[in-house]
Parts: sequence; C-alpha cells; structure tokens
Amino acid sequence: MDNKLNEYLEFAKNIAKNAGKIMLKYFNQSNGASYKGDKTIVTLADTEINSYLIEKVKEKYPTHSVDGEEEQFGSSDYVWVCDPVDGTAMYARHIPVAVFSLALVIKGEPIVGVVFDPFTNSLYTAIKGSGAYKNDEKICVNDFEIDDIRTVCNFDYWIKADYDVTKVLNKLRKRAYFVGLGSVIRAGICIATGDFSLAIFPGTLHKNCDIAAVKVIVEEAGGKVTDLFGNEQRYDKSIKGAVISNGKIHREVIELIKRDLLDIK
Amino acid sequence: MDNKLNEYLEFAKNIAKNAGKIMLKYFNQSNGASYKGDKTIVTLADTEINSYLIEKVKEKYPTHSVDGEEEQFGSSDYVWVCDPVDGTAMYARHIPVAVFSLALVIKGEPIVGVVFDPFTNSLYTAIKGSGAYKNDEKICVNDFEIDDIRTVCNFDYWIKADYDVTKVLNKLRKRAYFVGLGSVIRAGICIATGDFSLAIFPGTLHKNCDIAAVKVIVEEAGGKVTDLFGNEQRYDKSIKGAVISNGKIHREVIELIKRDLLDIK
Repeated sequence: MDNKLNEYLEFAKNIAKNAGKIMLKYFNQSNGASYKGDKTIVTLADTEINSYLIEKVKEKYPTHSVDGEEEQFGSSDYVWVCDPVDGTAMYARHIPVAVFSLALVIKGEPIVGVVFDPFTNSLYTAIKGSGAYKNDEKICVNDFEIDDIRTVCNFDYWIKADYDVTKVLNKLRKRAYFVGLGSVIRAGICIATGDFSLAIFPGTLHKNCDIAAVKVIVEEAGGKVTDLFGNEQRYDKSIKGAVISNGKIHREVIELIKRDLLDIK
Repeated sequence: MDNKLNEYLEFAKNIAKNAGKIMLKYFNQSNGASYKGDKTIVTLADTEINSYLIEKVKEKYPTHSVDGEEEQFGSSDYVWVCDPVDGTAMYARHIPVAVFSLALVIKGEPIVGVVFDPFTNSLYTAIKGSGAYKNDEKICVNDFEIDDIRTVCNFDYWIKADYDVTKVLNKLRKRAYFVGLGSVIRAGICIATGDFSLAIFPGTLHKNCDIAAVKVIVEEAGGKVTDLFGNEQRYDKSIKGAVISNGKIHREVIELIKRDLLDIK
C-alpha cells in the first residue's frame, strides 16, 4: 500500500504544479480593475483546473471519482476531493493568497493531501502516517496557547454559513490576533507550519473540499481538525464547519464554541 | 511646484523599488518555521528599509525630515512618512500580502504617496490633484453600496487600538463580506483600485504612517479617508484610527461608528 500511496502523492503533486501554472496564467492576465472581468477570469481558472483534474483522473485512475468544487465525476470509495482555487474572492482582486488543494479521500478519510501556493512556489504534502512536508522539508505545528503573544488565528466568514460564531469570535479576539485571509486552506497550511495556531471555519454545504487536504496535512504536522463541535468528519460529504488548530488549544476552543452555539442543523 | 512634485514622486518611486528588493531578499531567506527567527528577519527588513530611506533623504533633501515606523529624523514641514513593511505579522509568516508605503507630508497633508507590493510588482502612486495610478495606469474606486454582492471590506484589528469597533463590525458583517488581510495599507490600495469598498482601522498611536500614502492615493482615485469619526486628519502626528472607503458609503459607515462609539480619547 505504501508504494501505492507514494504513487498517489506523486500524481497529486504533478496536478498541483500544473494547477498552479493555470492560476498564475490568469492572475497575471487580469490587469484590469473591472470586477466583472475578474470574475470571468476566475471562473476560467477554476473550471480549467477542475476539468484538467477530471481528465487526468479518468486517464490514470478510471475507477476513482472526483469531487471538485466546480465539477464532479463518478462514484467510488476513492474520491479526489479538490478546491481548484481557494480564496477566489482574493484571487480575483489580485491578492496573492489563493491556493490549490487536492486530497485523495478513501471511504471518507483523507489519506493523501497536497496544497500548492503558486505565488511563493510552496508545495505542502502529506500521506497519512508519514508526516507533513513543505517543499520536502518536514513541518510541525506550534505549541502556543491562545493567549500567547505569538498566536495568530484566522476566521473566514462565509456568507452562507449555517453557524453564527460571532460570540466566540468576539471573545477570542480579545485574547489573540485574528486575521481573515479569505482562504481557509491558506490558513490551514499556516497552522501546519506553526505560523498560525487556529482557524475557525463556519462553512458547511459542499465545503468538505476546503478541508480534506488540510485535515491530513495539519494532523500529520501534529495538529487537530474536527467539525465545529469537536467531532471527526467524513470528507466525501458536507461538513459542519471546521476547527483547525495546533492541537494544544483544540479542546478549549471547541468548549467555547459549544457553549455559545446550538447545533441548529 | 508641479515639476518639484514630479521630482518628489520619482524619488519616492525609486525608494519604493529598492525597499521592495529588501523585502523580497528577507522573505525568500526566511524558510524556517521558527517564529523567533522570522521575527528577527522582519526586524532586519524593517530597519534596513527605514535606514536606507533616512540616508537617501539626508542626501537629496537635507532640510526634510523622516517619520518612519522604526526610526525618525529631523523636524520640518516636509516630512517623509514611511511604513517600511506594513503587514509585518503576515510577512513573517511567509504570506505575500505586505507592502511598503511612503508619503511626502507637507504641513500635515500627504501631497505625494507611493505604495509598493513587491510580490506582484505593483507600484501605486499619486500626487495630490493629479489622479492615482497602478504601474502608470489610472485607477479608480468602485461605486458599490455596502449591501452590494460585490462589496469586500477589510477590518484590521490592532491589539493596542483605543477604539473598540466590535459592534459596528458585527452589524456590517451581516451585510458585506469582510476579510482582514493583516495590512491596512494593502486593503487601502485595494479600495483605490476598486477591488475593495471599505476598510475600518482602529489603530491610533503612531499609526499615521499606515494611512498617509493611502490618504492621497485613495482620494485621488475618487475615494475618501477620514478618522473613525469622519474628521480630516493630519498625517504628521497620531490619528484616531481611519475609515477608508470608495466615498459613496463613507457617510453611512461613519454614522454607524459614531452611533456605537464614544470618543474616548
């Protein structure tokens, strides 16, 4: 199985590098300030990457399926879960924080994950049980408490989110520095490298593709990823938001969320 | 005076390009995940750029003064107000959103402003009365209302801010998409290009250097920049936060803030 997993990882890395080229191609071409124009360009990048992935999976692993944010294919226990461009709104506005994300999810569990940031040429990878890497160098979460001066947290609000975590956010904001990069996957890999300590993500419907690769990369780096209520998730269907952390502060954050939030779904 | 202002702008552009080189030099060198290491590296980039600016001003305009975030020099009606690296916390964490900012402030008013994003090689410039430009192409704010689906807002929380704008933020978050890029200057230039519609910045002490260049660039692009209470500011001393907008929504945002916030300073 190990050789097979390495083969899957190599496949995913290759897809990621080519997806990054497509992202850069449209990012550089979009020099106008017109929002409509940018929106079109982003749609092109998203769909082009999604189609490219489906084409490659069909060619190499015809029995596998693809769950892309823009397009899906097939039905199988082996699902390639993909967010072609996470941070779309920022990408469209010429802010280089968007990333490509791809995971091989087997029976709901991400076994292989890659995230690629084409702007700094950084490739984040993990195979379950084998550690997490940035450009082939091992990465590790930090061990900061919430109140540590070094702690940075990310909150990405999604307008269609089913959970209102405003109360928790207001409490935590008094204790730690919060940013909102507009890409929860970007924030996730920052947790895997030890640069951030926490990300709270209230997205639900079809937002499994935002977290699948992050799940295996962050946990292989020593962190923790669950839904907003501290439960393990399946990444081949919708999720109840996500808490992504360095592990150390996970339980405390979940308790704060549970205290303020009713499980409305 | 026009020729003189053009000369000042050329001087500022040259400083900005070289500051960008220094930013990239340390950004690329900082490959470790160690926070301490990054902090040191950032301090080096900040102080190196600030020193370089002071050296160049002394050489070219010895009667002018410099108000840099890290180091100051002289006392004059002509002040070069500079934030060497805005978005320091993100820069230290390998997220390419930080920018360099420099304004020539004459008797409190920014007359020339430049902001440089070395990661996408984008130079934003303005001379008061002569329009705003991105890489020599004219830029313009958008005309979106707060509730427009296209509206993106930025809120950069500063832990030492004297104003708690949480209430306003919670209200606006229900109406528009909010991010927090960790660099208010980056958000400011996004407003100048029409990509963002609003930024609320509660920073106070010595945070004039965050807004001076943004003031002239955003207003020359058709937008509006005031303190949190709608008042004009001087940029050679501390400011009472800032509201940066496309102009159209400025009054509405100021009214919301004033309703919820007492002028505690």
